[in-house]
Amino acid sequence: MQKEYEQKIVLVAGGDLRQVYLANALAKQYTVYVYGFAEDYINTEEITNLTSIAPFEGKVDYLVLPLPVSYDAVRLEAPYCTNEILLRDVLETVRQGGMIFGGKISREVYDLCENRGFQPVDYLEREEFAVLNAIPTAEGALQIAMEELPVTLNGIRCLLTGFGRITKVLVKYLTALGADVTVTARKYSDLSWAEIYGCRSLHISQLDQALPHFDLIINTVPAMLFHDDRLALIRKNCLVIDLASKPGGVDFDLARSRGLKVIWALSLPGKVAPVTSGEIIANTIQNILSEKGERPC
Amino acid sequence: MQKEYEQKIVLVAGGDLRQVYLANALAKQYTVYVYGFAEDYINTEEITNLTSIAPFEGKVDYLVLPLPVSYDAVRLEAPYCTNEILLRDVLETVRQGGMIFGGKISREVYDLCENRGFQPVDYLEREEFAVLNAIPTAEGALQIAMEELPVTLNGIRCLLTGFGRITKVLVKYLTALGADVTVTARKYSDLSWAEIYGCRSLHISQLDQALPHFDLIINTVPAMLFHDDRLALIRKNCLVIDLASKPGGVDFDLARSRGLKVIWALSLPGKVAPVTSGEIIANTIQNILSEKGERPC
Amino acid sequence: MQKEYEQKIVLVAGGDLRQVYLANALAKQYTVYVYGFAEDYINTEEITNLTSIAPFEGKVDYLVLPLPVSYDAVRLEAPYCTNEILLRDVLETVRQGGMIFGGKISREVYDLCENRGFQPVDYLEREEFAVLNAIPTAEGALQIAMEELPVTLNGIRCLLTGFGRITKVLVKYLTALGADVTVTARKYSDLSWAEIYGCRSLHISQLDQALPHFDLIINTVPAMLFHDDRLALIRKNCLVIDLASKPGGVDFDLARSRGLKVIWALSLPGKVAPVTSGEIIANTIQNILSEKGERPC
Amino acid sequence: MQKEYEQKIVLVAGGDLRQVYLANALAKQYTVYVYGFAEDYINTEEITNLTSIAPFEGKVDYLVLPLPVSYDAVRLEAPYCTNEILLRDVLETVRQGGMIFGGKISREVYDLCENRGFQPVDYLEREEFAVLNAIPTAEGALQIAMEELPVTLNGIRCLLTGFGRITKVLVKYLTALGADVTVTARKYSDLSWAEIYGCRSLHISQLDQALPHFDLIINTVPAMLFHDDRLALIRKNCLVIDLASKPGGVDFDLARSRGLKVIWALSLPGKVAPVTSGEIIANTIQNILSEKGERPC
Repeated sequence: MQKEYEQKIVLVAGGDLRQVYLANALAKQYTVYVYGFAEDYINTEEITNLTSIAPFEGKVDYLVLPLPVSYDAVRLEAPYCTNEILLRDVLETVRQGGMIFGGKISREVYDLCENRGFQPVDYLEREEFAVLNAIPTAEGALQIAMEELPVTLNGIRCLLTGFGRITKVLVKYLTALGADVTVTARKYSDLSWAEIYGCRSLHISQLDQALPHFDLIINTVPAMLFHDDRLALIRKNCLVIDLASKPGGVDFDLARSRGLKVIWALSLPGKVAPVTSGEIIANTIQNILSEKGERPC
Repeated sequence: MQKEYEQKIVLVAGGDLRQVYLANALAKQYTVYVYGFAEDYINTEEITNLTSIAPFEGKVDYLVLPLPVSYDAVRLEAPYCTNEILLRDVLETVRQGGMIFGGKISREVYDLCENRGFQPVDYLEREEFAVLNAIPTAEGALQIAMEELPVTLNGIRCLLTGFGRITKVLVKYLTALGADVTVTARKYSDLSWAEIYGCRSLHISQLDQALPHFDLIINTVPAMLFHDDRLALIRKNCLVIDLASKPGGVDFDLARSRGLKVIWALSLPGKVAPVTSGEIIANTIQNILSEKGERPC
Repeated sequence: MQKEYEQKIVLVAGGDLRQVYLANALAKQYTVYVYGFAEDYINTEEITNLTSIAPFEGKVDYLVLPLPVSYDAVRLEAPYCTNEILLRDVLETVRQGGMIFGGKISREVYDLCENRGFQPVDYLEREEFAVLNAIPTAEGALQIAMEELPVTLNGIRCLLTGFGRITKVLVKYLTALGADVTVTARKYSDLSWAEIYGCRSLHISQLDQALPHFDLIINTVPAMLFHDDRLALIRKNCLVIDLASKPGGVDFDLARSRGLKVIWALSLPGKVAPVTSGEIIANTIQNILSEKGERPC
Repeated sequence: MQKEYEQKIVLVAGGDLRQVYLANALAKQYTVYVYGFAEDYINTEEITNLTSIAPFEGKVDYLVLPLPVSYDAVRLEAPYCTNEILLRDVLETVRQGGMIFGGKISREVYDLCENRGFQPVDYLEREEFAVLNAIPTAEGALQIAMEELPVTLNGIRCLLTGFGRITKVLVKYLTALGADVTVTARKYSDLSWAEIYGCRSLHISQLDQALPHFDLIINTVPAMLFHDDRLALIRKNCLVIDLASKPGGVDFDLARSRGLKVIWALSLPGKVAPVTSGEIIANTIQNILSEKGERPC
């Protein structure tokens, strides 16, 4: 079999379950090797090729690093590997003219790559990655709401704050499930879109009056929207899910002291849908390659 | 306060959490008493009136019994009560000309009521009760699928068998969530509806060829659709959720022996959304009363 | 070319444009001939085979007659043919054991067929035909509303009466277009479905109070729902579209004398989407053949 | 009645039907006068106040001018007025500290206002105006497609080019109507959104291969996307609707010479839904006022 000579070679190194599925998704078009997983961890039925790093020196076309690549710019983030892997060693495997991909690439990691003649591409910074990640995030939020609430989402009075990607997907899902959805935002054009998509809209300046009305609040705004005064307005039975990245938009300690149920749900994609998360990274990498005019063979 | 003299009196006796919320929902229009719950079980903030059965002899307008009313036609089904309650005693409370409601009323219970001059109404037999119950059932099925699958429902290839109430609601939810939904049924008109609602349709006679294609199968047909030959066609990673009432539509033992993940999900409404379930019963009772020309005062 | 010997032969005789497209749709699987259209009427690019009736005596497997087949049980309904065609002559063409299809088959036409040893099948009586026809009917109603109203359907307060097939499709379309849709019906289960599909629901007993509220009323109930008292309640600017078959559900003369704009829209499928209408008949005939175990070859 | 002393005064001057409905919409909160319409043109039942311009000198709080305000920066655009109205005279009516609104305000008109101490606000440049206008534009495109095509939109293979506001609304409508919608765009994130909203996606680089596939093409991209080579690939029966502003995205003469049906549909909102169009302008003006902290009284 001459597959290796025909297809480009990808090395997926480090990371968690998502990287395994990412490898799997890329294997439809490329010859893919994985590295940095304990052998018993990889289900060989699912992954086409599995080997050690040794034979790849200078031979790999594309190197795919995890999200994040590394916490100290020295060791590869590889939680499923018992040995320590040096980032330096992994970078060695890429041939001249090859490409390096990673998520949340730090300044130090970037420099390390550049010193070796590569300009690594951060898939986390791609807009379509963020768009597609909104899907598992929104599904994860639905799952939490279904698990926590003693009522159906159908008929629930739900507030979504902000009108970014996650809210847009949540609007689609929640309205279809029959929730009575209100979107609050600052821009009038966002409010118009919210109405087009079947929601009520509420200018942020009128949030306070409306707050006591809701059974479910999902926050996507990374600003302290729910401080003490507003927490006081929320109904006792209301569930609050905060999807905003650190420091979040809800004062948790105060909320808890008020007896409110608040769930801070971060990194949902990898938790609720690791396979899909891996496929989204694979998809993004394929888009980048196709923009650069790179072909699988 | 003369509330008692103005509003009709309802006694909600026995049952589980759903009956408490049903009482709560009816309390918006009626004076409602509950009976058959341990005192510490009832959250008095939520329920308007709470008292013992004694004062009601012959004074209650409407008696609402649980689902099922009783397993032996002697004792009221009252799992949250430590004492045994005799159905006979509860029936005593209804005034002449009053009405009795219950779920899954057996022949014996029916006779017991009739002997006292009442024709009890079974809310389980109302079409709108079944329609509305399809909502929590469908949501419960989504929740299970989200919890069990490592992929998002978005993009999943999903098969729904039958085109009854639950499938109709599932179709609405799953298509909105971006699943690739196929409905299989026997009647061509059902297949046409499935297509109108955005699904693929598959005549049941062609089920076998299509089976290996799916990631999720939700069965709603109470007939042994998934016998050994068909189980052999299903992919190993496919999740099978059986919503059909006993004996179900999947041969569980065989499925398990084949390594398939099958979940038999019965009585989802009471489990995933007890509040909504109670409100659905309340809603149904109000429809019946309104059809009979009965008014709250 | 041996196509004729392999495929079953269909003769499509009489009717309007729809039958031409029906012939076209069947031609993907059968050898199809059409009869009863002036030659210049048929676009030969679109139709595979076109010939006179003569060569078919006793050789045709399936005969497809129009909707209606005939008004006098003597002459075939063939508005696009200058000659008169006798039904008797057309029936002659079907071979022993062949099948005859038609729409709205009268007792007399039925007997005529039976005398020759055939039991004709009426596609108009098939449930899936009625279901699929609801699509062009609903689209036609949307088109009329868009043409007549100086406002967008988005935001319009719309009343749909009845909850049959056409209403179900209209609900899907109008809610997606952002209309504020209310369904009125008698059965509580219908009202529950309407709510599940994103509408407001209104029991028919409360229609009068709500009537002044609407900008658009689409009636699908073939009963005099809109008599004088109710017409008096409708707003002057409200558009009323009556889709109910004769005698309709609106008192037209009274409505007009009150200055209301009422449009009685019958037989929309053939008018707004003749190609689709023909394909729906073809689709229905294929279902019937497949139920009878008949195959194209 | 002291209404005049309490409410702010608005003068709506010039323009077409839309301005009349805009005046009507504002009259819910303000005292509104219209100017520049022949008397018999205004339906006095619909408009609260109607008077000549004379009494308003220096008394009007807000002046609303049409879209466009003027073609020569001298005369007010007032097609329904028989007399010529000088822009200069109309500007006189606004009190010190009042506000002027207009659509497509030219440099010259802007200067004219500024010389008098006003900074006019162009509602055409507001994002929510453009968003809301996408609704009547999309409905208008649906109406054209329904009128022109002999098939239902249900089942049609439809291509939308670009993924701006109009496409987003069209996607919502067409998918709900059961069309098989493909979106083509350049940005991968747009393609991801198109898929989330239930469409197929097609990178613009692969447009050519896919073109012969479609029954309906709606262009929203103001660039010559459909030049001769591409027109040659489009099916003869395909309807092409061009919604892109001048010079449009289709070579019309060539398309016509090729026998393609192309409809260039500009300014749909005012044509298909003048009432809604007026309300959208009113809505936008209210947002601007509310941002500036202005109140109706």
